[in-house]
Amino acid sequence: MKKKTKKVNAAILIIGNEILSGRTQDKNVSFLSHWLNSKCGISINEVRIIPDVERIIIKNILEMSNNFKYVFTTGGIGPTHDDITAQSISKAFKLKYEYHKEATKILENYYGKSKFNDGRKKMAKMPKGSKLIYNPSSAAPGFIIKNVLSLPGVPSILISMIENCKRYLIKGSKVHSKTINLYTVESNISKQMSDIQKRYNRSVDIGSYPFFRLGKIGVSIVSRSTSLNKLKRVNQDLIKMIKAKNIKILKI
Amino acid sequence: MKKKTKKVNAAILIIGNEILSGRTQDKNVSFLSHWLNSKCGISINEVRIIPDVERIIIKNILEMSNNFKYVFTTGGIGPTHDDITAQSISKAFKLKYEYHKEATKILENYYGKSKFNDGRKKMAKMPKGSKLIYNPSSAAPGFIIKNVLSLPGVPSILISMIENCKRYLIKGSKVHSKTINLYTVESNISKQMSDIQKRYNRSVDIGSYPFFRLGKIGVSIVSRSTSLNKLKRVNQDLIKMIKAKNIKILKI
Repeated sequence: MKKKTKKVNAAILIIGNEILSGRTQDKNVSFLSHWLNSKCGISINEVRIIPDVERIIIKNILEMSNNFKYVFTTGGIGPTHDDITAQSISKAFKLKYEYHKEATKILENYYGKSKFNDGRKKMAKMPKGSKLIYNPSSAAPGFIIKNVLSLPGVPSILISMIENCKRYLIKGSKVHSKTINLYTVESNISKQMSDIQKRYNRSVDIGSYPFFRLGKIGVSIVSRSTSLNKLKRVNQDLIKMIKAKNIKILKI
Repeated sequence: MKKKTKKVNAAILIIGNEILSGRTQDKNVSFLSHWLNSKCGISINEVRIIPDVERIIIKNILEMSNNFKYVFTTGGIGPTHDDITAQSISKAFKLKYEYHKEATKILENYYGKSKFNDGRKKMAKMPKGSKLIYNPSSAAPGFIIKNVLSLPGVPSILISMIENCKRYLIKGSKVHSKTINLYTVESNISKQMSDIQKRYNRSVDIGSYPFFRLGKIGVSIVSRSTSLNKLKRVNQDLIKMIKAKNIKILKI
């Protein structure tokens, strides 16, 4: 019986001057991409990093929500003046930017009435009709509106919330991967890899990535496919090719 | 005498399935962004990460080369089948994809005639009319065509080549930045920060970023401006505000 694969794609929109300026190293792309593929079978097909500028956020939200099944935004949902993700998404979708009742209640309980100041209240404002993505670590929730899921930029808080996105996502087919590491240079195996890639065109993606280890040059060959069966066959072909060239395959 | 600031913007296009899949953590954005600002006064205004797919590379090259003064691509200029950056850029600009004479000579000298195989020859192919970006660490050059500069994805090689981009870039005004770190929560200072931001609207950007250190919650306030003078004044205002709230400023 042939299992039909269902491809579900998504994009990430990182909103933040601190990433663009090089001050902060983004860590959310690799976490989100890995988690979405392994837990939900959703593939990240594009990432954009943009500044905290309303006009630019609106343009990108509209483009990406049109082009992908889901868009995950990170950053810009805190209490300060440069946190403008929620109001920009409201404008993009021409929705009212208003206090979310449940979010207000959650934040008021968390901080206590006397400490629930204007900055904190701002974190309860979002596009009308949003559903909440609960935040077990610091209370302030993310939200989903249409196909856009908005998460915070701080990696530890984002990670703590990610399981709460699941209920909103339809599942696709997981992309499996296999890696073969060897000490050689890419150009030594490029022709043979290309021939194998042609034989499995579209069903398996073969990528090769140079590395340096213990003063030696090596290559990681990474094959990726939704079909474990085809992945196995590609790897058999790759190993046969490598052995024919008398190259040793590394254990790790 | 008032010095006129010249804003020069740029974008980064990261081409590579390995970054999108979460397998590899990108390190080029923070390096490039930092280097371009500090050495050339060029600000990165957008970053995109896309897969090794010709149609998608072409679309993004056209959009970004239209929207920004410079576009830096990373990845996809090696010897293997998945390295399709040079041919995709050729197609985007409707230019012949052909052997570059000097690049061919450089690579032939580097490898020696007998070891100059097809994979290696491929690295000398680029859009007609390209100028070379020399590579002191592994010979294979990058290239510039129109306003697009193509660099490799391996960070150590990219870093070794970056000085050789300088000759092709016009200089802008450097964005200076100042950071104040303090143990507090954002919502405690959000209103006051917003007021200061409003006073210096457009000339200084104030961003605030939460951090966790030694079990305590803190905030980094980062101000950025091309004017050192205005930056100084904003920082005086920020420090005054922080002292009025009896919050201690951290040394580092």
